[in-house]
Amino acid sequence: MSELKGACIIGQSGGPSAVINCSAYGVIKTALENPCITKVYGACHGIKGVLNDELMIMDEEDASELTNMLYTPSSALGSCRYKIADPDVDDTDYKRILEIFKKYDVRYFFYNGGNDSMDTCNKISKYMNRIGYDCRVIGVPKTIDNDLAGTDHCPGFASAAKYIATSIMEISRDSQVYDTGMVTIIECMGRHAGWLTAAAALANIKNDGPDLIYLPEVDFNMDQFISDIKRVYEQKKNCIVAVSEGVHYADGTFVSEAKTSGTDGFGHAQLGGLAARLADVVKNATGAKVRPIEFSLLQRCAAHCASGTDIEESFLSGKTAVEAAVAGHTDKMVGFTCTRDANGYQCKTELFDLSLVANTEKKVPLEWINEAGNGVRQEFIDYCLPLIQGETKMVKEDGLPRFVHLKKVLAK
Amino acid sequence: MSELKGACIIGQSGGPSAVINCSAYGVIKTALENPCITKVYGACHGIKGVLNDELMIMDEEDASELTNMLYTPSSALGSCRYKIADPDVDDTDYKRILEIFKKYDVRYFFYNGGNDSMDTCNKISKYMNRIGYDCRVIGVPKTIDNDLAGTDHCPGFASAAKYIATSIMEISRDSQVYDTGMVTIIECMGRHAGWLTAAAALANIKNDGPDLIYLPEVDFNMDQFISDIKRVYEQKKNCIVAVSEGVHYADGTFVSEAKTSGTDGFGHAQLGGLAARLADVVKNATGAKVRPIEFSLLQRCAAHCASGTDIEESFLSGKTAVEAAVAGHTDKMVGFTCTRDANGYQCKTELFDLSLVANTEKKVPLEWINEAGNGVRQEFIDYCLPLIQGETKMVKEDGLPRFVHLKKVLAK
Repeated sequence: MSELKGACIIGQSGGPSAVINCSAYGVIKTALENPCITKVYGACHGIKGVLNDELMIMDEEDASELTNMLYTPSSALGSCRYKIADPDVDDTDYKRILEIFKKYDVRYFFYNGGNDSMDTCNKISKYMNRIGYDCRVIGVPKTIDNDLAGTDHCPGFASAAKYIATSIMEISRDSQVYDTGMVTIIECMGRHAGWLTAAAALANIKNDGPDLIYLPEVDFNMDQFISDIKRVYEQKKNCIVAVSEGVHYADGTFVSEAKTSGTDGFGHAQLGGLAARLADVVKNATGAKVRPIEFSLLQRCAAHCASGTDIEESFLSGKTAVEAAVAGHTDKMVGFTCTRDANGYQCKTELFDLSLVANTEKKVPLEWINEAGNGVRQEFIDYCLPLIQGETKMVKEDGLPRFVHLKKVLAK
Repeated sequence: MSELKGACIIGQSGGPSAVINCSAYGVIKTALENPCITKVYGACHGIKGVLNDELMIMDEEDASELTNMLYTPSSALGSCRYKIADPDVDDTDYKRILEIFKKYDVRYFFYNGGNDSMDTCNKISKYMNRIGYDCRVIGVPKTIDNDLAGTDHCPGFASAAKYIATSIMEISRDSQVYDTGMVTIIECMGRHAGWLTAAAALANIKNDGPDLIYLPEVDFNMDQFISDIKRVYEQKKNCIVAVSEGVHYADGTFVSEAKTSGTDGFGHAQLGGLAARLADVVKNATGAKVRPIEFSLLQRCAAHCASGTDIEESFLSGKTAVEAAVAGHTDKMVGFTCTRDANGYQCKTELFDLSLVANTEKKVPLEWINEAGNGVRQEFIDYCLPLIQGETKMVKEDGLPRFVHLKKVLAK
């Protein structure tokens, strides 16, 4: 492969996670150290930062301060939910991106995000290739939803999974403290894929997990749901339920729909309030004391409870992206291939075609869900458990997290 | 003081906390090692366990397993919200308690809980004294609400405070990730006292805290609330608000009242759903994107984020209770007196009269709240910050907490 010298841009997009900054740090640190990369720019708020000519010079940041990105949740460079047009319909954005790339001699573009971000990355990659501008484009995955195709799992998922399992263990202990009975309904994120809600099942290996788990991969039936809870509650005088925000009836209607208002920038319905809604239904149907709990943003930003494995792998994915690009690869997303056998868990990076991963959603395999559709099988546990191992090395100051503070020196 | 030989009972009552088991472990370990105490019983579900003759023999538990109580949230012995009668009106419960005390030769009674539990403890103490049954009664404080009189602070508060400050820092980073603006309204526990909500301000020392804080110590004014948020939002395009579940209008009506249904065993209104309610109001008034977050049970059971100082002090309060009782003290609650000066933070145990602490509520001093009633002053930070120092030494197994598992061998 030919050597390509020039600047790079790293951008972050979509919903943040506890470890997306680990991936970005993997890109930034590796790029700063690589002689082929002449300058490292961070795009303010993802692709919008490129379009607005708002690029931070990462070379200006203090190297030791940057290490705190490993323990800082959310997108340190800023994120966006900007849907880029089909270039055949409207190429305005692409021309502007090209203009900026040329202005700063950008030859490497790394985009750090989920499905929609990989779509953006894919479109930019194909456009640059078509018009013959030499630029290597690599996607760096991130999504707590764990729904990107190709890769074994997505950076960000494991930390959210660890937070959910840990918190459910704690809630489980709390909910059993009185002898008066309690139903607890816990809502987890995951619009179309149930990975995060399934992660609640990890708590069961410590006997402090949910009795019932409902994923969006299975059509939701309210009568069955109430009957499941009644059965468990009558038996144990306690019932813990984990339910995905995205559960829907057989006709596709979200159970939370009546509470839905507004949509996000990608046209998705904004979900939420499902737990409270289900709690009302269950309270009326059973007479039990019912408590709804929504993990809300906490599950995607709880860096203090991040998985050590996730932190390492996220960094690795960013590092690999730069190394692969410098080696000549483009139009790819970094992903993982893993083995789980008698030798334990092994994880290697692999490059996947951006076209393959853009806009496809990987769901929990139906054969990992139990027959009654209210729990997950051992296959899921075997898949997920290795991912949540290890703890964060988060630095504490004053008993509180020490998050990164960037100077954010703009290139202009 | 005369030496008193006999068995002891430890009971836990009221809402659990991340460290109430540290206090109970302090009692149990110290009692097991003390030659004056012939047997250590744990009451199943607090005073209800005494009334129902359901006592666990703690001597039967494995000593090394018991150490996991230090890192296990919620009440390991079970809790209750049983309101004991005034003995002058109805002494049925007291006669039954006496019967059980005599049956097991109980000469030491330790009760681990908050205001209502100290009331129970106080009543039992006075009754036993009046009828001349030689039994030493000591309260071991616990309440995340931090509202017990006498003591500098209450075991359990600091861990909840640390969780709240940590989580708000994470939410703060998350809420600033887009450039499209966001108001985040975070609801913290605290029925009549604003200590926990005030703890949100700790995050401000790291510049990742709330812009506005509303405590129940100050009458709530909806117009002022909306105007405060508008001002901050217009300036920063972002606004983080911490609000106590117990905020109320000048006439005493809880702001959450319209959503209130049912009461707990002590006749308190069950609060909750306030954040969602306020979010609706703010959304309509400002047009901004508004996200409600309710910490719910998470703030009182997040042992994975407990304060190391809180764990140590909670254990110490239990240990001191036993030592004081064996030394001849009775009718007291263990509390703390603390100094915060150039020499740092010092904490010593002290005994307070149960009559003093039973059923009184210590609120956040008005002089620690800012003039506008939407924030706290440095005095609060100076008070609270030392309490959240240090981390839990929680044992992890499979990447998840290793909670205590008791055999629960019943004495019968």
